[in-house]
Formats: sequence, C-alpha cells, structure tokens
Amino acid sequence: MKHDATPENAKSVKVSAGNDRRSFMLAGLGLAGGAAAGSMGLLADAKAGSNLPPDVPIWTKSLGSGVVAHPYGQPSRYEAQVERRTVDWLTADRMASISFTPLADLKGIITPSGLVFERYHSGLPEIDPGQHRLMIHGMVKQPLLLTMDDLMRMPSVSVIRFLECPANGGMEWRGAQMTGVQFTHGMLACCEWTGVLLSTLLEEVGFSRDASWILAEGADGAHMSRSIPMEKALDDTLVVYAQNGEALRPEQGYPLRLINPGWEGNTCIKWLRRLEIGDKPWYQREETSKYTDLMPDGKAREFTFVQECNSVITSPSPEKPLKGKGKYWIEGLAWSGRGKIKHVDVSLDGGISWREAGITSIVLPRALTRFGLEFDWDGSPALLQSRAVDETGYVQPTYQQLRDVRGTNSIYHKNAIHTWNLQPGGTVANVQLS
Amino acid sequence: MKHDATPENAKSVKVSAGNDRRSFMLAGLGLAGGAAAGSMGLLADAKAGSNLPPDVPIWTKSLGSGVVAHPYGQPSRYEAQVERRTVDWLTADRMASISFTPLADLKGIITPSGLVFERYHSGLPEIDPGQHRLMIHGMVKQPLLLTMDDLMRMPSVSVIRFLECPANGGMEWRGAQMTGVQFTHGMLACCEWTGVLLSTLLEEVGFSRDASWILAEGADGAHMSRSIPMEKALDDTLVVYAQNGEALRPEQGYPLRLINPGWEGNTCIKWLRRLEIGDKPWYQREETSKYTDLMPDGKAREFTFVQECNSVITSPSPEKPLKGKGKYWIEGLAWSGRGKIKHVDVSLDGGISWREAGITSIVLPRALTRFGLEFDWDGSPALLQSRAVDETGYVQPTYQQLRDVRGTNSIYHKNAIHTWNLQPGGTVANVQLS
Repeated sequence: MKHDATPENAKSVKVSAGNDRRSFMLAGLGLAGGAAAGSMGLLADAKAGSNLPPDVPIWTKSLGSGVVAHPYGQPSRYEAQVERRTVDWLTADRMASISFTPLADLKGIITPSGLVFERYHSGLPEIDPGQHRLMIHGMVKQPLLLTMDDLMRMPSVSVIRFLECPANGGMEWRGAQMTGVQFTHGMLACCEWTGVLLSTLLEEVGFSRDASWILAEGADGAHMSRSIPMEKALDDTLVVYAQNGEALRPEQGYPLRLINPGWEGNTCIKWLRRLEIGDKPWYQREETSKYTDLMPDGKAREFTFVQECNSVITSPSPEKPLKGKGKYWIEGLAWSGRGKIKHVDVSLDGGISWREAGITSIVLPRALTRFGLEFDWDGSPALLQSRAVDETGYVQPTYQQLRDVRGTNSIYHKNAIHTWNLQPGGTVANVQLS
Repeated sequence: MKHDATPENAKSVKVSAGNDRRSFMLAGLGLAGGAAAGSMGLLADAKAGSNLPPDVPIWTKSLGSGVVAHPYGQPSRYEAQVERRTVDWLTADRMASISFTPLADLKGIITPSGLVFERYHSGLPEIDPGQHRLMIHGMVKQPLLLTMDDLMRMPSVSVIRFLECPANGGMEWRGAQMTGVQFTHGMLACCEWTGVLLSTLLEEVGFSRDASWILAEGADGAHMSRSIPMEKALDDTLVVYAQNGEALRPEQGYPLRLINPGWEGNTCIKWLRRLEIGDKPWYQREETSKYTDLMPDGKAREFTFVQECNSVITSPSPEKPLKGKGKYWIEGLAWSGRGKIKHVDVSLDGGISWREAGITSIVLPRALTRFGLEFDWDGSPALLQSRAVDETGYVQPTYQQLRDVRGTNSIYHKNAIHTWNLQPGGTVANVQLS
C-alpha cells in the first residue's frame, strides 16, 4: 500500500451488509475497476454508468472559505434536521408552550444551547441586560438592587447539571405514546451553568433567622414565580448568567436565571428579577393549579421538587431505526435529581433479563450520564428498555410500580421504565409495558 | 415590604460606586420619588426630566415570541460583540489563517462551538457526510473503508478536553504584545468530544506488531497530515464525530476529526479521511517546515506533541477593564496536556508574592480549569499574573526560565507566565516581565 492511496481510490462498502462487524471490511483496497457503489452516487455522477472509481470530491480539490467567514459559527447545513420541535395540540398557543430537545441526534452529555428545550408561560421576552435588575428584599437586614455588572464582580462557580421539566413524559402517563424520543423525553437538557451561589447573595443581604422560604420571580409577562425552601437556597442554588461558556441564551433566561440543581425545571426561574425572603411559601399559580400531583385519593401533592432517577434509550429509537442485521451501539441517557448515577441496566426482552451497560461519559451529580452497550441484532423483534439506579440506591420503577403509588391522574414526575419495540424491519415503535 | 414590590419601584444604584461590596446596597427600597438613575435611562425616556421611578420595561408588560420561533437558537442580540476575530497581518490570506476564541467573555470551562478558534491550511471545506469515507490501511491485516453510519454503529465514548494550537501565544514570544486575551491566548478551546477510540478501530483492522506510527490525513485541499505515535493512538486518541453534544461543527472538522487529548491542536486532524499504519513517521510538511521548535543552537526539536501547563487571567484583561475602586472577581483559565491542574496561584505584584486561587469548575485531565480570587482594588497600579501547577508537579515557567532553555527563535509552545498591567484608571495593558 503506497502513501498516496486515498479513500477515493477504493471501492465503497455497503453500510450494513451483515451480522458481524467484520462486514465493514473490504476484501481489498486496490485500484481494480469495480463499479462505484450506490452510496458514492453523487461523486460518481460525472461518470454515471462507467466502471471507474468515484472522483475525488470537490472539497479535496479546492480552497474552502477563510477564517471568520462566520464570526459566530453554525452547524453544517447537512444537520438542518436536528432542531427543536413542538406539538401544537399540547397547549392553546405557542406563547405558553414547550418545544423539545432532539435527544436522538445528541451525543455525550452536554446539550448544545441552541437545542435546549423551551418552556414559556407568556412567550420569550427580549431583555436589555443594561436595564435588567435583580432585587433581593423581604426578611433581610439590607435589601439589594443589583445590576448585571454588580453580579459579574462577585465570586462565581460553574457546574454541569441537567435541567428537566417535571412534565417530561407527561403525555406518556396518560397513554399518548408520542412518536419519538424527542417527544417522550425531550423536556430535558444538560449544560454547564455559571453564576453566583444564592448563598453568597443571602449573606450579602443578611437574612433573618426566621426566614425559611424564598420567592423567585421572572421579568417575563407571566411574572412566572415559585417558592424555594431556604435549605435548598443555602445548599446549591445558583443565580446564573452563563450557559455552556457564553451568556445565557434568551430562551434560557437571558440575562439571569435561577438553577436549582436536580429540581423541577420550572423552579429554575428564568429572566430572574426578584428574590423575596419570607417565612412561608407564597402559593403562586404555578405551584398550586399547576406543578402539583393529583393522587389516587383526590388530594394533590405540592412542592414535589426533586426530579427522580430516570433513563431512556436514545438510539435505537423511532428516529434511529436499524438498517438490517448486524452490530449496533445501543446508547442512552440516565439522570437523577438525587445525585450521581450508579449504574444502568439494559433489557432486550421487555424487562425479563438485564445486562449492565457501560458508562461512557463523566459521571457528575445531577447531570446527564451517557450509557452504551454493544448489540448484535439477528433481526428478531425486541423490547428495549433501560433502568437506572442512582447513588442513593433508588431504582427507576416500572409503570406498574409508579401507578401503584401515584394512580393515573398525574401529569408530572413520570420516570417509569420506557420501552421501545424494535420490529423485524428495523423500525422502532413506542409501546407501554406495565 | 409587600409582595408586589418590584425592581421598577425601587431606585437604581450606581454600578461601581465604592470600594466595598456593601456599596451595592441601597439605603432603602421604598417608593420615594428619587430621580431615576442614568443607568435606567432608556426606561425613563418617556419621563425624561421627571422625578418618577422608571417604567416597568416593555418585556414585563407584553407577550414575547412563541416556542420554535428559532428551531436552532442563537445568542441574544445584546451579545453580538462576543465573536471570533482574526489578525490579518498574521498570514498571507484568510484561507491559511487563524481566528481567536473571545476568552474574556467566556465563563466556566466549555467553549461554545460557535466561538471555538479556527485554523485552516486551505480554507474551510464543506463536506457531505453521506459521501465522506474514512480509510484505514497500511501495516494491517485487513484494511477498512468506513462510512459515517459504520462509525455510528461502533462503541463510543465522550470526554471533555481542551484543544490548543501550539502557536498559541507565539506572537508574544517575539514580543508582539497583542492587545487582549483573545489574541494572546485565544487559540484555545475546551469541548465535550464524542467518537470511537482509535484503539477500537485498530483492533478492527488488526495492525502489525511492527507498526509504531500512524499517519492521519484530512480531506481538505491541503490534505493536512501529521504522524502520530502508536502509543498515543492506543492510549486516548479519539476519532470524533460530535462536539458539545451535536455533530462536529464544519470549522472543527465535520463530519470527522481526530482528537489527541492534551497534544498540539494540529495533530488533531480535521475532516479526517485517512489513517495509514506504518513503522516510522512520514515527515510531512506540517511536522518539518512548521510545528517544530528552533532551539538556540540552531537545531529544531521535532514531534513536541504535549501542550505544557499554562494559565491566563481572563478578567481583568484589556477587554475587561475595572470601573473604579472596589471588590472584583479575578478569574481565568488553567490547563495542562499532562493531566489535571493541581493548583493556581495569582500575583498582584508581578510575581513577588502569590496567593492561591480557588478552583471554581470541575477539574478534569487535559481540560480547561477555571480559577477565581476576590480582589479589593484600591485604585493602585498592579501587575496581575497567574501561575498553574499540574498533577505531575510541573510549574508554569517565567519568560526568563523558558528562554534559558528555548532561546528566542521559537514560535510554538509558549507557556510563560503572562502579565497584565492594571493601571490607575482601570485599563489593563499587556506587558512582558522576564
């Protein structure tokens, strides 16, 4: 083999030709005049019908564009299908709605900021950071009114944590069986968040010893607000101005938001403008009429903050069908609002037998964790499931276990084991096993 | 204080009014009719000259835009100044040039993909992933020609690692004293990378026991190529298709690149199309005429792969001047191609005395690490430096220490302690101390 051999000089190979990884291999890489395979079609266009090897592609024979053609870069145009999507029947209009993260196309644990799911209660406000203020008041010695510049001068920390709407999977709970992991689990993201610990700000204002709750309020038209217990505020709550290294995105609360690691996404108030320190919860609209859990006895649980241990297989999935028999990489995400993921099991037979998956990313508390497992598919139908266990020993429940406690009236906090029905042709359907 | 108190009902506060963090505080937050402060000017426009408090901003009184107005989100228009920039005198044209990461505006350790520095040798190619192939051949039992789909079916891993051009700081070495941390240190980024371990692919092709080097070659017009020792390839080299959760960006090698964690950025071949297994290095153009280090005796070091331990203060910096006396947060980045950062010291007096900075991010091997330190500025001039130590005990050198070994002919591998000259007015200049 000479040094100047190039892929263009070689015969192409069929993508999924057999049931063994060796099927990737070519018998030889010589320059023999085999027909250019179909997958090299565009390259072979100029020689349609000939037996010559495909042309060297244009990008290898030309100069590309220069630096800073794009001072702020964008994805390749070949990735245009990877985008947030919504479901219009879910809410009355798009200003009080949600869009979903395209989980099937994502890798690792970081969610790119442009693809983080959206949730608005009165639409996306466009805030001038020079005019934005954060007021901290109530049961304090000295109220504060802070500019963004003030906040930037204070000690900061950066953490990688997941963010999940408590309604994630809520349609499944009612049996809707959405098509695609983008819709079954896509109210979910994981970013690096940078900001000032709320405990640092609370020290600054000198809160009363009798204070036990904090109201957080947004600057959006809905004045979206939630009551946060002081214990959480003093633990790990962050007042955040940066996401994945740069300023928060508008959809994520620019210029300022709260992050309560591991807790319901809607406690993580976006466009944060006010923190009031008090001694009881405020019972705002979004913690009474919504974001409570109707139990079988007709009573509603309130302030169910923690997002329980959960997991899902992102590939195969309805968006990622299999292309014939052979070796594949089953992968997915696991997370827990209680801490680190300890291990993840995968079942191919709907939960009868389990194999431990490998963890293929860093494992951080209250962060997404990536798992994977090799799978040699013989073309038979299979029921794919994942089951996560967190460091507290909590095991992700089955639907039956969840319904035994919670009944069927809930919308929020659905973390049951999810099932993908892999069909003989390679398509993947959403099914619900008890 | 009533629950309906809002920031708009309160007097504004001057951004940087004093020399104590207590200067953030207001004497009171009542509704007294004080003049709206200048910093709330836009809000007060409608009441110019009046003594009334500023209006509630329009975004708090209106509906914003609905979900998926942007299926792929973008930064706020107020962040438009945060962008990659180039220096046109650096190279003959923009197709063989570099742009720089805007480090002063970044937080945490993740670099957003749209702001990662660029380095092209023949411009940015635009590659169709359906046509792209990776050929692995040479001293192997069975050569392979892989499609992107083939690679996606193989076991994958995700790691957060820095990427640095070995020329980072090269202009400083020659005494250019670039204005701004974007230009002194901005050939630097840190992302989560996902792909297949090169060792997995090497197992697949069954490489010869005599093989000791691998040539990696890009599909760009320059066919950019470097020789990689087998030891690294079997250790942690990754064949990467995803960056920060999504497909690689075009500027970063879409659809496929190499990542050699902790090594010279230009060994991390972008648009990777070919891996040849051999028993000696190839001595390609970019490892002979370039990317070697001319020593004082006139000989050139070759294959100096590891990016040494380094650090820089990102704020204050020329881009982030101080606004009067008072408390500030000094922050910056440290990294080492040899492993984890162990600690970072900061000096305010040009290296005479040192204080240990806090580490404010996760600490990962061969990743950027964020440090910070409180600083109560009395308005005096100061010489700000940071000095990093990695887990091997290696201490970042002074310019004098570096030149004692390396002379002054080098371009690459400049990791000397950097100095910012903080001037009485708060501006920050780049100075070089021995």
